[in-house]
Amino acid sequence: MNDCIFCKVVKGELPSYKIYEDELFIGILDVFPVSKGHALVIPKEHHAWVYDVPEFGKYWEVARMNMRAVEKATSPKWTQFFTHGAIRHAHIHIIPRYEDIQGSTFVPAENDKVKFSKDEMEEIAEKIRKAF
Amino acid sequence: MNDCIFCKVVKGELPSYKIYEDELFIGILDVFPVSKGHALVIPKEHHAWVYDVPEFGKYWEVARMNMRAVEKATSPKWTQFFTHGAIRHAHIHIIPRYEDIQGSTFVPAENDKVKFSKDEMEEIAEKIRKAF
Repeated sequence: MNDCIFCKVVKGELPSYKIYEDELFIGILDVFPVSKGHALVIPKEHHAWVYDVPEFGKYWEVARMNMRAVEKATSPKWTQFFTHGAIRHAHIHIIPRYEDIQGSTFVPAENDKVKFSKDEMEEIAEKIRKAF
Repeated sequence: MNDCIFCKVVKGELPSYKIYEDELFIGILDVFPVSKGHALVIPKEHHAWVYDVPEFGKYWEVARMNMRAVEKATSPKWTQFFTHGAIRHAHIHIIPRYEDIQGSTFVPAENDKVKFSKDEMEEIAEKIRKAF
């Protein structure tokens, strides 16, 4: 897919804060994080939806592996998996949550979006990479 | 876990709109649906969080199988997977979405909650069961 942003990230044609890579998948930080350590796990092959990925169980095993590293690096209270699909290349959201589960919103509200500088993002990614 | 609501559902001590059952997992309709066909896939064994379930890849394969049946029965535009955890027994949300993905909220808003009668819920469950 020539105009797919995540295909370009996979090929290295667009920069990313990479935290993980294997033969089939990559893990990167979400550039519009809703919490510190918010990451995405993406298949290298282009599939529109998460549920189109043939190695579906494996995909989630890899997502959990990434989640454990994110957790180790950022110490959230709990972590959320989440799929949406506004970018039409499969991606699993890993969202560390720092508030108590009871009374927490389903997902962090739009206005809870957090901002990190490039240096801070690189620092978070490096910490996660070391936590695998 | 004696006081766990989902352990009671698994044991049949609490009623549910069951759509699926195998050796390890059950699928039921969420009794507070945010959309028509909103379902949960739950391990029979008690684990607090989705990511604590040992057969994690298998768990998601089963969630996808349930999702395909929900999809066939309810014809949404797309479907969302989602984990939260206010009930501390692992459960994967399957949320059929009937609005376009572009511009859609991350999850249906609280005030988008839909109401179905007992009969309607049973009818939806029956339609999904037949779609496996």
